[in-house]
Amino acid sequence: MSSLIESVEQVFPGVWRVRLGDPEKFTPVGLREIAPDVVHAGALPAVPDCPIDLNQLRFKLTPRGCVVEIPMGNGEQIYGMGLQLKSLNQTAKKRTVRVNSDPLADTGDSHAPVPFYASTSGYGVLIDTARYALVNLGSHVKVGQGTPAVGGAVPSGSTSELYKARALQGRFVVVDIPTARGVDLYFFAGPTVRNAVQRYNLFSGGGCLPAIWGLGIWYRPFTGHSADKITEIISKFREQKLPVTVIGLEPGWQGQSYSCSFKWSTERFPEPQKFIDHTLSMGYQLNLWEHVFPHPTSPIYEPLKPHSGDYEVWGGLIPDLSLPQARKIFADYHETELVDKGISGFKLDECDNSDITPWFWSFPEATEFPSGMDGEQMHSMLGLLYQRTIDGIYRKHNQRTYSLVRSSHALASPYAYVLYSDLYDHKDFARGVTTMGFAGLLWTPEVREGVTAEGLIRRVQSVAMSPMALINGWYLATPPWEDAAMEKAMPEAQLHPHTNLLDACRPIFELRMSLVPYLYAAFARYRFEGLPPFRALVMDYPHDANVLKTDDQWMMGDNMLVAPMFAGQTERDVYLPQGKWHDFNTGKVYEGAQSHKIAAGINTIPLFVRDGTILPLAEPLQTIAGDTVFNITPHVYGTGEIEPFTLWEDDGTTFNYEQAQFNRVTLVWNKSTGLTATRQGNYKGIRYNINQNMESR
Amino acid sequence: MSSLIESVEQVFPGVWRVRLGDPEKFTPVGLREIAPDVVHAGALPAVPDCPIDLNQLRFKLTPRGCVVEIPMGNGEQIYGMGLQLKSLNQTAKKRTVRVNSDPLADTGDSHAPVPFYASTSGYGVLIDTARYALVNLGSHVKVGQGTPAVGGAVPSGSTSELYKARALQGRFVVVDIPTARGVDLYFFAGPTVRNAVQRYNLFSGGGCLPAIWGLGIWYRPFTGHSADKITEIISKFREQKLPVTVIGLEPGWQGQSYSCSFKWSTERFPEPQKFIDHTLSMGYQLNLWEHVFPHPTSPIYEPLKPHSGDYEVWGGLIPDLSLPQARKIFADYHETELVDKGISGFKLDECDNSDITPWFWSFPEATEFPSGMDGEQMHSMLGLLYQRTIDGIYRKHNQRTYSLVRSSHALASPYAYVLYSDLYDHKDFARGVTTMGFAGLLWTPEVREGVTAEGLIRRVQSVAMSPMALINGWYLATPPWEDAAMEKAMPEAQLHPHTNLLDACRPIFELRMSLVPYLYAAFARYRFEGLPPFRALVMDYPHDANVLKTDDQWMMGDNMLVAPMFAGQTERDVYLPQGKWHDFNTGKVYEGAQSHKIAAGINTIPLFVRDGTILPLAEPLQTIAGDTVFNITPHVYGTGEIEPFTLWEDDGTTFNYEQAQFNRVTLVWNKSTGLTATRQGNYKGIRYNINQNMESR
Repeated sequence: MSSLIESVEQVFPGVWRVRLGDPEKFTPVGLREIAPDVVHAGALPAVPDCPIDLNQLRFKLTPRGCVVEIPMGNGEQIYGMGLQLKSLNQTAKKRTVRVNSDPLADTGDSHAPVPFYASTSGYGVLIDTARYALVNLGSHVKVGQGTPAVGGAVPSGSTSELYKARALQGRFVVVDIPTARGVDLYFFAGPTVRNAVQRYNLFSGGGCLPAIWGLGIWYRPFTGHSADKITEIISKFREQKLPVTVIGLEPGWQGQSYSCSFKWSTERFPEPQKFIDHTLSMGYQLNLWEHVFPHPTSPIYEPLKPHSGDYEVWGGLIPDLSLPQARKIFADYHETELVDKGISGFKLDECDNSDITPWFWSFPEATEFPSGMDGEQMHSMLGLLYQRTIDGIYRKHNQRTYSLVRSSHALASPYAYVLYSDLYDHKDFARGVTTMGFAGLLWTPEVREGVTAEGLIRRVQSVAMSPMALINGWYLATPPWEDAAMEKAMPEAQLHPHTNLLDACRPIFELRMSLVPYLYAAFARYRFEGLPPFRALVMDYPHDANVLKTDDQWMMGDNMLVAPMFAGQTERDVYLPQGKWHDFNTGKVYEGAQSHKIAAGINTIPLFVRDGTILPLAEPLQTIAGDTVFNITPHVYGTGEIEPFTLWEDDGTTFNYEQAQFNRVTLVWNKSTGLTATRQGNYKGIRYNINQNMESR
Repeated sequence: MSSLIESVEQVFPGVWRVRLGDPEKFTPVGLREIAPDVVHAGALPAVPDCPIDLNQLRFKLTPRGCVVEIPMGNGEQIYGMGLQLKSLNQTAKKRTVRVNSDPLADTGDSHAPVPFYASTSGYGVLIDTARYALVNLGSHVKVGQGTPAVGGAVPSGSTSELYKARALQGRFVVVDIPTARGVDLYFFAGPTVRNAVQRYNLFSGGGCLPAIWGLGIWYRPFTGHSADKITEIISKFREQKLPVTVIGLEPGWQGQSYSCSFKWSTERFPEPQKFIDHTLSMGYQLNLWEHVFPHPTSPIYEPLKPHSGDYEVWGGLIPDLSLPQARKIFADYHETELVDKGISGFKLDECDNSDITPWFWSFPEATEFPSGMDGEQMHSMLGLLYQRTIDGIYRKHNQRTYSLVRSSHALASPYAYVLYSDLYDHKDFARGVTTMGFAGLLWTPEVREGVTAEGLIRRVQSVAMSPMALINGWYLATPPWEDAAMEKAMPEAQLHPHTNLLDACRPIFELRMSLVPYLYAAFARYRFEGLPPFRALVMDYPHDANVLKTDDQWMMGDNMLVAPMFAGQTERDVYLPQGKWHDFNTGKVYEGAQSHKIAAGINTIPLFVRDGTILPLAEPLQTIAGDTVFNITPHVYGTGEIEPFTLWEDDGTTFNYEQAQFNRVTLVWNKSTGLTATRQGNYKGIRYNINQNMESR
């Protein structure tokens, strides 16, 4: 295998691009629009040298495409490769980088595969390709190059024994890219794995900063409801004192969906503007479901026809959104017909290559697009191109959104779009929250229904501790907590002290609303430092062998550890990393670097606060607007040294922060002086009232 | 899209090869060894013209590879694409032709994907490629070429509604072959879909004819048992009067497995020849588990090293069995060390590209082989090459086998190897029996355990009506019917009239043994006429709209319909095609062309015999040897016209039948003369004693 390195160039602080052969034109970097955030990268530790020994890098062209071998140490643990729902730790796995709407097996397929991985040895690698690359992360060794074969003298007596991991022998990551005649690799220095991820996100353009209302509670009513019925349901939320900030309409808002007319149903929404205005007047934001494929009756069908792929999806077009013309037609229509009229975000569905639902749910890889992209490349890039198209409208309006998308890929962190899916296993949902942070992605373990009251509550608890607290009732005539049969099936004693499901769910929603300022601060770190607001434990503790596979707990912001409960559990093991931890619910203090058995009744999700934390909890509101002021009570955890906490303050809904229109509100506590809050910055508004009578725990 | 047809040639009666572009070297046809069976093809209906309008065929080269569009009518129903466990009817589906050890989703991935499909319009198509081709079977239409878009004005209110099939709009089969710069297509004429499948099988070289003992009962004891323990277990079968004909040893027979030494364990099998001889003397055949990857301690490791791929699997080699040198080393060792010593077959495991079990369970697609094959091609072809290597030994010995293999592909019908897997869902297992017949494959819904006594019995019933009646106890210390806990959990009233699991299983085994002559006749049709011995109903009744998706019933031979029961059922719907059918268990006569609710207690598997059938049932034996003589009682079903039935007779274990050393024993019945049996042919032995006192039903 020869090493055909065309060039090596440091393209960003601590990021080296290695060009191998003749790379393709349509790649994540090739199609990017948002520039790397060089300014903020300066705050990361300086690393003078490429973290990989390029003398050990190998590259070859084959009849199938090209193959790269990237050196890898024996002890390294690998994470990333996108939103992985079936496993967190990717070490020694074989991954297919393929967009797949319903990945059932642990093959790497995902709604949002990302050819980026990060190592506990403190570096990251981006393989800049839109192909269905195969990446063997140290899973194989060449003849004679590995350690001696192990095991096998005694036959395995069970499948679990046979299938369990054996001693890792792999020494190379093998990247196999069919079709391509070359590829750019980007190596991201650490020195820690967390730094490498931060560098990747800043290279992507920084993390996204959602519109602040997006961090509240989302509800999507039944797709077949009319405007009046929806108004009735969401009015009831206000009567019930149930905090809800965003209402999402499902396909039924359109007169024609699958494929999409992008026009209001005259039957269900006879007066769209009136409906929008009234909904906004109640303090809700409005989000609209759609997919990218215009129906022949859509006003944009004919204009888009010359700029679309040669296949249909559901009888609609596949606009080639890599073309400025197609993008302009699509965006202009959305701007004038929807965004201008008050729609603050979208749910971009069905852009994720439905393999599992056959028929014509997507387009063949053999599809030809006028830009020259083929169907394989478009499947990889469609989610990104779609986000970018919609995002451009809001940036033009100097308006932030928080939206949903069903597929994504590399360099996605600047887009405030949260991934979702109808994979129903709660543990898969939770695992996604731990894997997304290694890929520049956000993911919501959305709640559709709970099957049981217990399942519903457990899922609501998880989603409330995730990037987007979304309840998706698109096929439920009433909100799930109004399911009388489900409620009745749950013994009252279990619900205690609540007597109904609504009362059991409300405190979870309120807790989420209390956490909004804390989460907003975490998102500010994502934006400016590339630090994911939700992280697997291993990102913060890469040298703790106990967390290498912990995929059912996560860090939320810098100071809180979430350990969700799953239906059927009354207690669970929670591993707490080094240091002391305070049980958020009971106040009990636990020693870290060990596992604890934590009991948690139906009304409790185990949450732990790092010792030495100031946790700013807000008085829960019913909704959030741009000018919402949060009344914050800082809670101090610990008796020793207390770290300052910095709240981040801006107008919440525009990009003015990019012109330095923001404040940092720093909370400092010490025994003698108590709490002080210091506001610094150019933003003139006030978002936080700090209650100086903080609580100490 | 241009039509770059290089050539069109009729290469076989009713089979046209269309060469497009520059086909690859390593393909199923390119690697074939067994010649097409031209002689027997003559018996199929003559069809003068290629069944596809070649003017409508389109071909193009793309940067990714090549794409073919094959015309397809709107009403056509498509079957095939290999052993499909998730769906029978492939119409309008998108299939990936990829070997996958554990296909969880309905994507086309399979242990045995086969790029061959057959249409109810009466033709078949073989796409001669070893690539992971993507085949859209009418799932997509091009812009403006389909019927108008349907549905969508009313939003779907459930996922099932949303995901259900919509009106078929596809008009082309789109074949997308990455890497390839051309491909040969083979079009198989009908006139019926069944004829097209027969033609495909005869083009493959004809169906396989198993060694007759292979049609009995198989048992594979616990992998960790020693020779003495196995002898004890299989001696007990004889004491229990439990018919068993073949014993299979799992990895524990080897001193080193995963990877394989191919040498007997000195600990568990200190005197292998003594063990073999004793086992054979009890009337059993011996089958050995192995995989293809030699361990460094194997005697064939060093000789094979220069003829192997550049990657290891479990520290072992991947022999390039497309090379005569590698094949000779592998086969010679097996011949002298195992076949010569009395081993009559193998279970060829782990050749199926383990995606789902990560680590180093298989080799990368980027693997290079000395023949020039790459890992992708080798994954597709490995099962076939492995079968061929072992098969060559037996053919050299003029000895037939019946064996197992975990992966296969196109043109496999002449190999007497049955596919298996540890996919445990009983319905998936059953579905495989309906799909294998459209692909030149055999499949056993092997029983490993039953979880419950009911589940065990239901699975034993299904496997007894399949190509191989295999009970695989590789991780069970005792046979599953000796699981006391499972037995105890089943109310005695349910087991009635049996009082234990063994007594409940024995009659099922005996029924299988009674059916061996009937099945052997069905396999003779497979061999000489290419007619699959087990078939989906749609193969025989392609114009009955009620059977297009019937994947839980199958034809066994020409005259029996099997409708297995699944755990939890006490009755089921059985659709009977046109004509009258006799319930095998009760004698009740049902009218066809309709569905019937059939009750079946735990001791009953619903079986139906076509009216007008002579069913030759044998007195059940304990085992089967080459010289076994079956005492047969013909059962006549019906009062009207009775079709003759032809038994097929030969020595049962050699290829002498290819030199016309066989007889046809034709049973004819009419009211006046009663039953007559006529023996015609050159075989001198007698396998069947026909009891002239047939039973009439």
